[in-house]
Amino acid sequence: MNADDLAWETVDSGVDYTCPGFDVRRDDVRLPDGTETDFHYVDEPPAVVVLPFTPDGDVVLVEEWRQAVGRVNRGLPAGTVEDGDDADLEAAARRELREETGHEADSLSHLVTVEPENGIANSVHHHFLARGCRPTAEQDLDFNESIRPVVADYDEFRAAVFGGEVRDGRAVLAVSRYEAEHGSGVTGADGLAGDE
Amino acid sequence: MNADDLAWETVDSGVDYTCPGFDVRRDDVRLPDGTETDFHYVDEPPAVVVLPFTPDGDVVLVEEWRQAVGRVNRGLPAGTVEDGDDADLEAAARRELREETGHEADSLSHLVTVEPENGIANSVHHHFLARGCRPTAEQDLDFNESIRPVVADYDEFRAAVFGGEVRDGRAVLAVSRYEAEHGSGVTGADGLAGDE
Repeated sequence: MNADDLAWETVDSGVDYTCPGFDVRRDDVRLPDGTETDFHYVDEPPAVVVLPFTPDGDVVLVEEWRQAVGRVNRGLPAGTVEDGDDADLEAAARRELREETGHEADSLSHLVTVEPENGIANSVHHHFLARGCRPTAEQDLDFNESIRPVVADYDEFRAAVFGGEVRDGRAVLAVSRYEAEHGSGVTGADGLAGDE
Repeated sequence: MNADDLAWETVDSGVDYTCPGFDVRRDDVRLPDGTETDFHYVDEPPAVVVLPFTPDGDVVLVEEWRQAVGRVNRGLPAGTVEDGDDADLEAAARRELREETGHEADSLSHLVTVEPENGIANSVHHHFLARGCRPTAEQDLDFNESIRPVVADYDEFRAAVFGGEVRDGRAVLAVSRYEAEHGSGVTGADGLAGDE
């Protein structure tokens, strides 16, 4: 891939700004042509995202206030991987599912791992598929989480995703990936023509 | 949706940090239970992403140094929508395709629009499908863009996406969405079983 021709050299690095949720890191770099400059990016811990199905094939969603986009967002349970006992990503996914929705899963499997915005952030999202989810616990939210769990018809949610009504990137990615693997042309038949 | 039960009130807002590429905005907010606190998020302009096919059905990719994740990333042409003449998102997509790869497209269509990380950012990515892409121009990069265009076999790229080799979130989303719409079970047949 001739990767070396494109690589930057990092001369120095430091946290330039910090706030709850993430830092901004500034790297002093040398570009391939020798130019020295700096580059700033968001530094945050990895996260897990869960696409949770009930035994009946419904999907467990969260309606959550998202201040960055100024609306209640309908999406998937998700959260940051915490230090220490969350080294096991599947355990983190189970914890977020339980805390945000009060549901626990029979089984989890890895769906996909992505860097959603690696142009400006080192964020990594690990997506899991959860089967056999049942309400077994109480919601356990952080003080500034405004979240309502909703059990929804999966076909209706998929149609909302493919119709463009759902903009949440984690939900769109998880459903698209799940449908690419498991779908049988259904998505092509129910609304994509009207997309946009 | 009882959205109001979850909504936060924004009492004040200001840019708390700025760097090339994005700002960090701090909002003073009042939570539904009356608690007053603040919330910080990344404020950046919208972006376009292009999944570009040649007349032969190959895909036009970019190999690009991504400092935030410290490697050469294989992904899709993408870039920020600039003020003014980029109000037309399709024009922005054509410009980024041309500048990063030297290719121009016969036709573009909207694929999907997502907020990749609306928990900490107001980022919006508008994905376009481009058909009939041909080399017609010179690359025209910013000083700190280290990008090599590569025309690749689409089936091979799709297999790399579904096999987990490609982590770039934009590329994984665009290919997954395209396959959910146009795929015919092929993705299920070539490697997903091995996906962790």
